[in-house]
This record gives sequence, C-alpha cells and structure tokens, in this order.
Amino acid sequence: MDIKEKSLALHNQLNGKLEVNSKRSITTKEDLSLLYSPGVAKPCEEIYKNEEDVYKYTIKKNTVAVISDGSAVLGLGNIGAKAAIPVMEGKAVLFKEFAGVNAFPICIDTNDTKKIIETIKLIAPVFGAINLEDISAPRCVEIENALKECLDIPVFHDDQHGTAVVVLAGIINALKIVGKKFENIKVVVNGDGSAGYAISKMLYNFNVKNIVVCGIDGIIKEDENNNIVQNELLKFTNPNGEEGKLEDALKGSDVFIGVSKGNIVDYKMIERMNDDAIVFAMANPTPEIMPDEAKRGGAKIVGTGRSDFDNQVNNVLAFPGIFKGALEAGVKQITEEMKVAAAKAIASCVLESDLSEDNILPLALDRNVSDKVAKAVYDIGKSEAECGFNI
Amino acid sequence: MDIKEKSLALHNQLNGKLEVNSKRSITTKEDLSLLYSPGVAKPCEEIYKNEEDVYKYTIKKNTVAVISDGSAVLGLGNIGAKAAIPVMEGKAVLFKEFAGVNAFPICIDTNDTKKIIETIKLIAPVFGAINLEDISAPRCVEIENALKECLDIPVFHDDQHGTAVVVLAGIINALKIVGKKFENIKVVVNGDGSAGYAISKMLYNFNVKNIVVCGIDGIIKEDENNNIVQNELLKFTNPNGEEGKLEDALKGSDVFIGVSKGNIVDYKMIERMNDDAIVFAMANPTPEIMPDEAKRGGAKIVGTGRSDFDNQVNNVLAFPGIFKGALEAGVKQITEEMKVAAAKAIASCVLESDLSEDNILPLALDRNVSDKVAKAVYDIGKSEAECGFNI
Repeated sequence: MDIKEKSLALHNQLNGKLEVNSKRSITTKEDLSLLYSPGVAKPCEEIYKNEEDVYKYTIKKNTVAVISDGSAVLGLGNIGAKAAIPVMEGKAVLFKEFAGVNAFPICIDTNDTKKIIETIKLIAPVFGAINLEDISAPRCVEIENALKECLDIPVFHDDQHGTAVVVLAGIINALKIVGKKFENIKVVVNGDGSAGYAISKMLYNFNVKNIVVCGIDGIIKEDENNNIVQNELLKFTNPNGEEGKLEDALKGSDVFIGVSKGNIVDYKMIERMNDDAIVFAMANPTPEIMPDEAKRGGAKIVGTGRSDFDNQVNNVLAFPGIFKGALEAGVKQITEEMKVAAAKAIASCVLESDLSEDNILPLALDRNVSDKVAKAVYDIGKSEAECGFNI
Repeated sequence: MDIKEKSLALHNQLNGKLEVNSKRSITTKEDLSLLYSPGVAKPCEEIYKNEEDVYKYTIKKNTVAVISDGSAVLGLGNIGAKAAIPVMEGKAVLFKEFAGVNAFPICIDTNDTKKIIETIKLIAPVFGAINLEDISAPRCVEIENALKECLDIPVFHDDQHGTAVVVLAGIINALKIVGKKFENIKVVVNGDGSAGYAISKMLYNFNVKNIVVCGIDGIIKEDENNNIVQNELLKFTNPNGEEGKLEDALKGSDVFIGVSKGNIVDYKMIERMNDDAIVFAMANPTPEIMPDEAKRGGAKIVGTGRSDFDNQVNNVLAFPGIFKGALEAGVKQITEEMKVAAAKAIASCVLESDLSEDNILPLALDRNVSDKVAKAVYDIGKSEAECGFNI
C-alpha cells in the first residue's frame, strides 16, 4: 500500500486526528461547581474587569487557530473549506507534537477576502495567535496585513514566513560551507507568489543586495496587470534591471530558490550559475530540478521539500517553536527580528563540526529544534517588550 | 475559601481548562508522511470528490462548537466575548466528560446579529453541530432560526432547548406523583425570553393546553413593542385571554415555571395555585422562591437550578446526550421529536420505585443519563433518516 492509501486508511480509522480533552475530570459536585457554574462566574468577572486576565484564566495563552479557506491546499489548488480540513488538523497535530501548543483547525467557507478577514477578526478572542495556511496569493498577503492591523495577537502566514525562515536557516549554513557572504551573493527566486515574496523580503532584510525574482513569464517587471505582491517585489529586487527568462536570471547567480512547480529547470540552466551554486528546489512533490540533475549542472548544495532527499526544507522546523516562543513571551506580533532569530536558531541546530553539503539543516523530527527556536523568539519578544516595543 | 475564589484559583492554575491533543504521536518519518504531507493529500482529495466523506476522515463527525457572543453570560449580562470564554470552555469540558464529545469554544466579538450568523455559517465546515450559548433574547432565537435555515448540521441553543427538555422530564415525573395529566393542567411560565419560549413551546407540543406566560409587567398581551419571541408566544398561549399580574395568572394553576429572577414569588402567591402544586423556580443563583417558602404555600414538588436543593433542573442532563445521539445518527437537525425523546429518557432514569416528591430527576453527575438520552435521540434520528425525513 503506498503512502497515500495508507494515510487514507489511517484517517478513516482515526475519524479525526484531534481530540479536545478536559484537563480535569468531573467526579464530584464540587468539580462541577468549580469548572462550571456557579464558580466559573468568578474568572468571567475578573476578565470583564481586566481584559488581560483572559491570558490567566483561559486557553488563550496557549492556543493557536490554524485557519484556511481551502483555496491553495498543498498542490491541490482550490479544493474548498471541507476538503482542507485534514491538512489543518494535521498542522494542529504538528503544533502539539513538536511544541506542546494547542491548535484548532478553522476552515472558512468562502474565498471572499473581506469576509475572511472579518470572520477571523470576530472569532479571535479565544485564540492566542493565528496561523494562516494554504490561502492563495495574493489574497493571503492582503488577509495577513489586514489582520495584523486590527488584531492584538500574532498573525503568521506559515506558507510565507515559515518557509522563509527555514530557507534563511539553510542558506546561513550553506554559505558557511561555500565561503560566501550574504552581501555578495546573487539570489534567483523562482515564484512570485506569497512564498517567493516572503523569502525575498527576508533575504533582503538579511543583507542580500541582489535578488532577482521570476514569475511564469520570466523576470518580473513593471506591468499594469501586476498584483500587489509583484508590485511589492519590484520595490526591492532586481537592482540591475535584468530582463529575460529564468535562464537569463540564473546567469552569474549563487543561489537558486524554487517555490514554483516541478521539472522546470535542467542541468544546463544550473551550469549558468556561479561556482559552488546552492539550489533549493522546493516544489512538492516534484522539485523544480532533481538533486542529481542539479549536481550534474555543478550545484554544490541541493535542498528540496522532500524527506527522502538530504537537506529537507520543512516548515515544521520553524512554526511550532516560533508560535511557542511568541505565546510564552506574550507578544502582539511576530516581528522580522524574531523570524531572523528563529532562522539562526534552526541553523545553529547543526553543529559546525557536522556541517556538510548534505547536512545543512536539522532533521524534521529533531525534537530539540522547536525549543531552541522558541527560546530565541521568546528572548527577542521579552526584550522588545522591555524596551516598550511590540506592546 | 468560597466556591468562587476556589474556582478562580483553579482557573489560574489550569490556565485553560481544555487541551487539544493528537490521537497519534509522531515518532517516525512515516508518521509525519501519514498524518501530514504528503499522505494527507489523499483524504483531502476524497472529500473534494465526495463532500460527505468529511464525516469519515475528519473531526467533524464528533466535534461541536460551543458559541457565544458573551451577551447574556450566566447572570452576569453582556460581559463580552473574552469574559465569556471560561463558561464556553466549561461547557466544552461537560461535553467531553459527560458524553465523550469533542467541543471547542468560539467567542464572537460582536453583538451584531447578522454578523454573528454570517460568522457561524462561515466557520461551520469543521464542526458537526453548533451549540449556541448565553446569547441574549430575542437575538438568540433569530440567530438559531437563521442558522437552521442555512446550515446542514444541527444547531441547538442550549439555554432554550436544553432547559426545556429537562423541565419536561421533571414535569413528566412530577405529574406521575400528583396524578395529573398534561392535557388538564394549567402552567404558568414566568419569563418571556428565550428559555420561557422554548419551555412553553415544548409543553404545548406535549399537549398542555393552558399555558400562561408572564413577563416583567405580568401576563403578556398584544403590544406594538413586543419582540418576536413575545409575539410567537401569544400565538399558542393564554387560551382564555387572562389579564393581570403573575399572581393573577397563578390562580388555579398546577405548575409554576420560573425562568426569571430571584425572590419575586412569596408563599401567598403559591397558595393561589391548585392543590399539589408543582414549582420549578430556576433563577440562578437565587430562585424565584426558596423551596421551603414554596412548600409553606402548599407546593407539593419543588425544583430549582441549584445543586444544594433536591430536584435540580440541570441542562447537563440533556445536552451532552442529545448532541452525542445527533452526531452518531448523522442528523441534520435536532427535531422536536428528538427533544421529547430526550426528555422521556431523562425521566426514565428515575425508576418508578424511586420516584418521590424530592426525587423527580436524576442527579447531574449520573453518568447513565447521557447514554440513555443519546440512544433515544439516535433512534429517532435513524428512523427519520430511514423514512426520508431530516436528510
């Protein structure tokens, strides 16, 4: 039985991967009076008097909403709210298993951006943070930005920022191996959606000066049909005004980052890159170029999204720890600085002595990662709070 | 330490009464592939092809949303979404503890009826049923009716129907003791909100012909300022066109049902009732009349909402089993017939041989009740489904 059929059978057997449990069982009349009426009136009154007490007496402190509208689920496209539930449940499983964070799936039955924003805003009270997931671009960017404006809890679109954090972690370690510096490299990002945007922005903030982004028609350029993501990208990428196709962009580049689709790059294109090229081909399940083909083209280090190759770029290295740290520090936003700290923490999980072309990132199952990430994010959160930022 | 302070300390210690757990732990790469990507794509695809499969592969089959806008929380009034969370969490605890049903609290940050309806509709996909809670009248009735129209899962406002079911159960047993019949009794309901409405309607459907409902100004009557609940009540109550105050209504009545406020009835008013009067004084925490005072006025059987008196009328006898049965049968609505079956099941939990003036209802902690209720509701649900109703 292949993995998909096996997964289906397991889903059928479990009939839901999550369960909501009470931390206390009810066996006496007093239990009932303490956990429910009449005793429960007291924490209600306290929160009514002082809203911040909601973090003291309820699940808000340690509970994340995993929210999708089902518009861009895995590689399956817009399959709708109901069909997206297994993924959101799975994400909630990862939150608990990797970071001890409670997460609950919410699938919103509309693709209307405004309605999605309004709905999330209205159901936010019980949640300590919002993880947006599998929402199509550029809507995901609009939704995240709008929610950040109006909510006082962290909002984090994992397909963007989680991916960007792990990519940065991988590049930090890869550059150590090839002996290049961030400020000197040229990076080609293939994919002008939300992930490409978040990765580009994070690298730019990390001092990469030359980033060229390609879309389906090649290097992106001014165009009246551009969406907000493309327009934003044009503001800080392509400093030399390059034009042409992906293969043109690759000329003289040091890093290729694919967040697009499978089998669109061949070894000849990789040959156009500089020596010691770094290739992150993250399309799933088929990478933009297979690792052996990339190496044939001269790539020194290759990462993919897949667990059956070396150097897996897997979001699970980032989001559980990031949310855990943010919740514990009680921050209102997950800032750029926290994301950078998370990337550095992930990178540091591979000891310098263990670092090699085939080992630039910790394994997805490495349980030490989320705690290190959480601590890094927590420390930034706490120090920002002390400085008066981020409150 | 009194119960409220003790409850506050417990809430502080627990920091949230619920936790969301994974049914499977992740220890191997294969676990990750089965519970999440890439395996999870398969159940997604199946649900996309056949929407009903959502009940097979996700938590929907056994998960209830406990939803409030915080507008009528316990006796505390409109304390808002955040301050309502402890109650909704507590309700979710009861769902799990009494019926093994997963329940998750959702507190909606608006009192706008239309927005509440829209929000619940949009987040419904992951839930198998909706339990509305502590929403002020008459909005709760509007919200429930609108959601029943547009959703294909059960929607149940517990403050109305849960209370009505337990009251009916209590009256079934009380009438056995006093030897009266439903069709011959006069019932006075004090409270023209949603609970009074649901109780009146349920008793009417159960063949009580003479129901008189009082509001704050006495027996309700035609008035241009009436809300929809009052107007609905006037359609089937007060067949003899009685006028006056509560004490006028009580004259010649057999049953008093109070869902109003504390200390508004004295023994002299009870003296106006017929022999073998039945008094359900359910205002919390202070009943409309204390049991000893009611007995002084000649009441034969007295019930309250309180656990420290005999005959506690507690919703926990009804809702866990009702939802469990409805979810298991896969019904789209909780019908009048199911509620009646639930009431009869609750009544049957007190053996005829144990029946007495002080023992007309099972204890709140009696673990047998929810299974009996669930089975009764399930049986109706299944037979309706077979007849082609309710699909």
